Amino acid sequence: MATATTGVAEACAAAKRAARGLATAEGGTKDAALERLAELLGERTREILEANAADLADERAAGLTEALRDRLALDEARVQAMAAGVREIVSLPDPVGEVIEARTLASGLRMEKLRVPLGVVAVIYEARPNVTVDCAALCLKSGNAIVLRGSSYAERSNGALAALVREAVAEVGLPEDAVQLLAGGDRSQLAELASAEGLVDLVIPRGGEGLKHALKEVATVPVIYAASGNCHVYVHEDADLEMARRVAYNAKVQRPGVCNAAETLLVHSSVAEALLPVLLGDLADAGVELVGDERAGAAGGGVEVGPAGEEDWRTEYLGMKMAVGVVESLDEAIEHVNRYGSGHSEAIVAGSEEAAGRFTDEVDAAAVYVNASTRFTDGYEFGMGAEIGNSTQKLHARGPIGLRELTTIKYVVRGTGQVRE
Amino acid sequence: MATATTGVAEACAAAKRAARGLATAEGGTKDAALERLAELLGERTREILEANAADLADERAAGLTEALRDRLALDEARVQAMAAGVREIVSLPDPVGEVIEARTLASGLRMEKLRVPLGVVAVIYEARPNVTVDCAALCLKSGNAIVLRGSSYAERSNGALAALVREAVAEVGLPEDAVQLLAGGDRSQLAELASAEGLVDLVIPRGGEGLKHALKEVATVPVIYAASGNCHVYVHEDADLEMARRVAYNAKVQRPGVCNAAETLLVHSSVAEALLPVLLGDLADAGVELVGDERAGAAGGGVEVGPAGEEDWRTEYLGMKMAVGVVESLDEAIEHVNRYGSGHSEAIVAGSEEAAGRFTDEVDAAAVYVNASTRFTDGYEFGMGAEIGNSTQKLHARGPIGLRELTTIKYVVRGTGQVRE
Repeated sequence: MATATTGVAEACAAAKRAARGLATAEGGTKDAALERLAELLGERTREILEANAADLADERAAGLTEALRDRLALDEARVQAMAAGVREIVSLPDPVGEVIEARTLASGLRMEKLRVPLGVVAVIYEARPNVTVDCAALCLKSGNAIVLRGSSYAERSNGALAALVREAVAEVGLPEDAVQLLAGGDRSQLAELASAEGLVDLVIPRGGEGLKHALKEVATVPVIYAASGNCHVYVHEDADLEMARRVAYNAKVQRPGVCNAAETLLVHSSVAEALLPVLLGDLADAGVELVGDERAGAAGGGVEVGPAGEEDWRTEYLGMKMAVGVVESLDEAIEHVNRYGSGHSEAIVAGSEEAAGRFTDEVDAAAVYVNASTRFTDGYEFGMGAEIGNSTQKLHARGPIGLRELTTIKYVVRGTGQVRE
Repeated sequence: MATATTGVAEACAAAKRAARGLATAEGGTKDAALERLAELLGERTREILEANAADLADERAAGLTEALRDRLALDEARVQAMAAGVREIVSLPDPVGEVIEARTLASGLRMEKLRVPLGVVAVIYEARPNVTVDCAALCLKSGNAIVLRGSSYAERSNGALAALVREAVAEVGLPEDAVQLLAGGDRSQLAELASAEGLVDLVIPRGGEGLKHALKEVATVPVIYAASGNCHVYVHEDADLEMARRVAYNAKVQRPGVCNAAETLLVHSSVAEALLPVLLGDLADAGVELVGDERAGAAGGGVEVGPAGEEDWRTEYLGMKMAVGVVESLDEAIEHVNRYGSGHSEAIVAGSEEAAGRFTDEVDAAAVYVNASTRFTDGYEFGMGAEIGNSTQKLHARGPIGLRELTTIKYVVRGTGQVRE
């Protein structure tokens, strides 16, 4: 198949060459490629589903958990959802060329600070084939070439999708080599990608802590980890307890397998006995396994709460389990969140502006919520459009990584012969 | 001396603790600390000069080149210049708390994207003691704690200056541990600093390629290299040749030891014979050693031009030497710049908007100039105020690293009990 270039260096070099043509492409041309991609996803659904069926039938997929098989599986609705996602990206403004600042300098020079593409973005991901399309579409729109590295067990699905992206890109006259797919399966590819200085401008791994640690050891190219979320909901003493019950339940249960779901509930001691029996009852009824400190267990009104150890406060369960702690003060809550949190999304439910303000000021995280669920940290919800992941880093991108976060800046300075005195 | 904490882990941990107090400090309090620092620099000049004299008399300074000794040496005027620099930083707007974006989301949530401090910034630098004061002042103003790691031969000068910064910080009631100075001299400190995850949020090395490579191997903390500038001036066929002569001369000669000085001159073949004899004559008269390709030598009108090898096109001379090349086209010039340039500052001298536009679009660098000297890439010149260095990276900061580049962002989201459907 045309898209499966297995050599990392070769794929990155081809992407780098193509990136130059893409960087100066008109917004309309890039949008036309994306429109065509959305069409092709519709026209060639059967082809995609056949590739996906072959992946699912392959022995490499035999050892997958039911959850992973579900993430790998495609059907007509999922392919339609991909096309809809691509059309949404078309509707977003082109970030390239945006003038962030313009001024005439003391020297008389005219300076513009412009948004420009990064160049080549590598994305490392697992299971879900739709990531192939989402990430390629975001990179194309932001003028970047992309090197995709998916799971080996999704090879045929990813290959079929990447081939359609390349076809759409070529049809509008842009360089199809701007989209590269590595076959996957070989762990050494990760190190090669993450050290491809001069060829790759940014690596975005979408995966767990294992992937993160593996890359940290070897990366010389900049990496943005779209990784873990150990998120908290803290209920202050002056909270509206009905609101707290709703917010905490939603943060845990509505979609427990994602990074902005809550993992730990902290409750001020003065409201623990009023809140915990009902809230923990709701959670237990929904099937959430609860662990907690002694006081949470005692205040739980008979709901079963297992003992929580140090490890529980640190863990992103990504599932139907929650740790519950009782604290004596706002300070203790902030301390706990800053100590154990991963800097993703943190919420306080509080009645007073003073407590809310201290929480938003002092908690060190990408997104801090007052009286709302942590589940809103998301490019769509934030009005940024689609996202390529969520960053818990502080540099370059913090929070949702959208089109703007896939760009860098360039100062363009025009003069009439100015020299420095 | 109170400031010289030699243990890296200890210094970073102390800075981290202090950073929290600094992050929420009022702008007025931070400015008061800086005002006091400027005063102290005046009041205690003798103390500073004595420490500096002791450094210069020390055997560690005996082996320094004359240029390095000059960079190390302080006098009353240089100390006054430091104080003036600090007062300029006071006059800049506080970046912390700046609302970058605010909107009401579809869910009814009120979202603000705010600028917040990074936390702890480590700066690695050589020779010039004024960097101690400049960087500490920039970090304080932007709400960051700082860990300074200077040269061992500047130990007493840096120590005296860091002690004054701490004194000023303490006098206004802020945590003095926000300013840490490592004694230097031990190369293993670099690796320890660059891998102090969870304690250090950003490392900024101000030094040559050697320091850069040493850190690339070991860094797990984000690093912004304030490093090399292999900058070019390209003279297009339709350039105003008098302007080209002035701009190229200035870019090379006005201050050859800095990163935004030009290292290579490229000239379109159709103007080489008209321009090079006068321009190369000017450069030779100023004491610039010239090397070049054959055609540059032939067009030079008798000015001595040595042979330039591959290595010359790659080299940042940082001194009175320049490589000269003749090209056949704008494409060839852009190709050369993108191949050999370090992505710092690149200039074209051209009469037509078309050539200028292609150069600014296609050259991949932090700053691209039309009809002006490369020497303008600088925080002051760009109206950003003082800078902590110049970044040739694409992520987070590109170009001058000023107060804004020393911050990250935080989304603060306020609701009335919203949950995700």
